[in-house]
Amino acid sequence: MNVVQVEAGAPYEVQIERGLMDRTGEALLRLMGGACSVAVLTDDTVDGLYGGRVQQALQRSGFRVCRFAMPHGEAHKTLTSWAQMLSFLARQRLTRTDCVVALGGGVPGDTAGFAAACYLRGVGYVQIPTTLLAMVDSSVGGKTAVDLDMGKNLAGAFYQPRLVLCDPDALATLPDGVLADGVAEALKYGVLGDEALFDVLCQEDWQDNMEWVIERCVAAKAALVRDDERDRGSRRLLNLGHTLGHAVEKCSGYAVTHGHAVAVGMVWAARLSRRLGLCQAEVEQRITRALRQNNLPTDAPYTPKELCEVALSDKKREGERIAFVLPLRVGECVIRSVQARDLLRWVELAVNP
Amino acid sequence: MNVVQVEAGAPYEVQIERGLMDRTGEALLRLMGGACSVAVLTDDTVDGLYGGRVQQALQRSGFRVCRFAMPHGEAHKTLTSWAQMLSFLARQRLTRTDCVVALGGGVPGDTAGFAAACYLRGVGYVQIPTTLLAMVDSSVGGKTAVDLDMGKNLAGAFYQPRLVLCDPDALATLPDGVLADGVAEALKYGVLGDEALFDVLCQEDWQDNMEWVIERCVAAKAALVRDDERDRGSRRLLNLGHTLGHAVEKCSGYAVTHGHAVAVGMVWAARLSRRLGLCQAEVEQRITRALRQNNLPTDAPYTPKELCEVALSDKKREGERIAFVLPLRVGECVIRSVQARDLLRWVELAVNP
Repeated sequence: MNVVQVEAGAPYEVQIERGLMDRTGEALLRLMGGACSVAVLTDDTVDGLYGGRVQQALQRSGFRVCRFAMPHGEAHKTLTSWAQMLSFLARQRLTRTDCVVALGGGVPGDTAGFAAACYLRGVGYVQIPTTLLAMVDSSVGGKTAVDLDMGKNLAGAFYQPRLVLCDPDALATLPDGVLADGVAEALKYGVLGDEALFDVLCQEDWQDNMEWVIERCVAAKAALVRDDERDRGSRRLLNLGHTLGHAVEKCSGYAVTHGHAVAVGMVWAARLSRRLGLCQAEVEQRITRALRQNNLPTDAPYTPKELCEVALSDKKREGERIAFVLPLRVGECVIRSVQARDLLRWVELAVNP
Repeated sequence: MNVVQVEAGAPYEVQIERGLMDRTGEALLRLMGGACSVAVLTDDTVDGLYGGRVQQALQRSGFRVCRFAMPHGEAHKTLTSWAQMLSFLARQRLTRTDCVVALGGGVPGDTAGFAAACYLRGVGYVQIPTTLLAMVDSSVGGKTAVDLDMGKNLAGAFYQPRLVLCDPDALATLPDGVLADGVAEALKYGVLGDEALFDVLCQEDWQDNMEWVIERCVAAKAALVRDDERDRGSRRLLNLGHTLGHAVEKCSGYAVTHGHAVAVGMVWAARLSRRLGLCQAEVEQRITRALRQNNLPTDAPYTPKELCEVALSDKKREGERIAFVLPLRVGECVIRSVQARDLLRWVELAVNP
C-alpha cells in the first residue's frame, strides 16, 4: 500500500492500493475504534457501480450502513443536493460519534464533504474517490463546497476528512473524458513542481504507473496543504489554470468539465506568463503538447470580455486584485495578481492567439 | 468600556458599552486596518430599528455598505434564509478581504454567522447583538447554525467572529418577553458557576447593573469556550436546561421562545438532579423562584413521551447516550448522560410534578 500523510489541523492518511474499496470496513474499524453508524453519500451513477460493494464491505465489519445518492453531474453540485444530504443525515439520526463516507468523484465528494462539515456543526468523514480527478485533487486537502448561481464553489468549508481511500481499480469504469479530467490536474502538479511526473505523463503507457502517479500528485498537494491549510498563501499555487479555467466552465454552462477547463486555463496561463516575460515560448509549447497527447483541449471559444466578467465574481478575487498562477518553467510557478480594472488586458494577453 | 477577551482559535474581543453601535465604523476600521466592503445581515425588525444607524456609522468611516434583511422569527432560521444571504453576498461580490456584520438577536446572528462561515469557505464577521440573549450567549463562542425540519441548529459551523460589539442601549427597544429570554440564559450562568450573579438577578433593580451582568455572563462563557471550543467537553455545561429546553421549543412549534424553554428546562434539570440524589430540594426551589421573579415559565404542557421523542433527534445525543447538565447547587453543575433506551425514565423524573 502507498500511504501519504497529510499534515492538516488533524493529520490523516491517504491510502492508495488496488482493491482497497473492498477493505473499507477494516479501514473504518481502525479509524473509529469500533463499529458505529455510517452514512454513505454518493451520486446515482457511482451508487450503481460501487454503492452496494462499499455498503457490504462496511456491514461485514459490523457497521450500520445507510446510503444516499444525489443526481450525478456538476449541475447538481448545488445547495439543493447538499440540503437533501443534511435532511437524510438528520432522518437517519446520525450522531457526532458516527461517520460519513463521501463516495465518488469531485461532485458528490465536495457536496458530501460540505454536508459532513455542517451537519451537527461537523461530523467525521472519509473520502473514497472514484475518479482520477478526485483522487489527485478534490478528495485531499479539505476544500469542500457547492456552486451558487453566481459561480463555482461559492458556498463551502475548509473541513478535512479523517481518511482518504484511493482504489485505482475504480478508474477502470471511467469514460475516457473523465479520466482525462484527472490527467489535467496531474499535469498541473508536474508544471507546479515535479518535472519527472510531467515527463511520465507524456509517455504513452503512463497508466501502467497509476499508483505512482497518484502518490506523486497527492504528496505534492499534501505539501502545499501542510504549509497553508486555509488557502491564503502557497496553497494558491494549486489554482494554476483555475482562474480562467473556472471562467471557461461557467461560460460553457458547465458543458466543459473541470479538468478540461483547467487544461485550457493552463495553456492560457503559460501564454500570459510568456507575454509578461516570465517564461520562454517552450513552456507553453510543452504544456500544449502534453495536454494534446492526453486528449485534453488547449483552447475555448470565449472572448476575453466574457471570461473577464465571470472571473470578477470568482473567489480567488482578493479585494480589488485577481490572482494568477504563472509558470516560470515546467516545474516552477509563481503567483501574480492584477488590479480588477486591468484584468481585461491580462485576459487578452492570455487568450488571444 | 467593559472588554472581555475570548481565547478561541483566533482571539477576539467582546466590547460592552452604551452607545457603542454608533461607533461601529471606528471599531471596524481598527479591526480591518482600513475601509473595505461590509455586508450588514439582519432581520426586518432589527433593520427597521438599527439598520440605517449601523450603515451610517460605517459609511462615516469610509466603508462601502450593503444591507440584507431576512424575515424575523425562529421559524425563518432556515436554510432558505441562509441561502438568500449567501446569494446576496455573491451578488454584492464580497471578497475574502471584506467583512460581514451580523446585526440582531440570535436568529439573524446565528444565520448570518453561518453564512459568513460558508461564503467563499469563510469570510470575517462581526457580531452586533441587539437582544440580551444574543449578548450573553449566541453572539459569543462561534456556534452558528440554522434549524432543519428534524430539529434545531442541526446545520451549522463552529466559526468565531472577529469582534463582538454589545450596546446595552439596544435593549431599550426589546419587548418584555424577549428581554426575559436573555435573563433565563443569564440565570443559567449563575447556576453553572456564579452565585453572586444569580443573587443579583433575583433583585428587583438588577437592570441598573446591565453592563456588569452582561460582562459576567460573557466572561463565564468565554472561559468555557477557551477550554473547549469544539463543544466536546466542559463547554457542554452551557447546555444546562437545553436538553429538554430544545424539546419544549420543538414541541411548541417554536411558539415557546428559546430562553423561556431553557427556563423550563432548568427547572426540570434541577428536579431530575434532586431525584437522582445529586442536589437538595432547595436548589430547585431557588431556581424556580428566580425564574418566576423574572416573568419566566417553570413548566410546559408536554408529556415525557413527546419530549423524549424529540430529544432523541437532538445534537447533544452522542451515539447511544443523551447528556444532561445537572445542578449540584446554585453555582455548580455536572454532566451526566443516559442510554437512549433509558431516556424516558429520566424525562419522567424531570417532568412529573
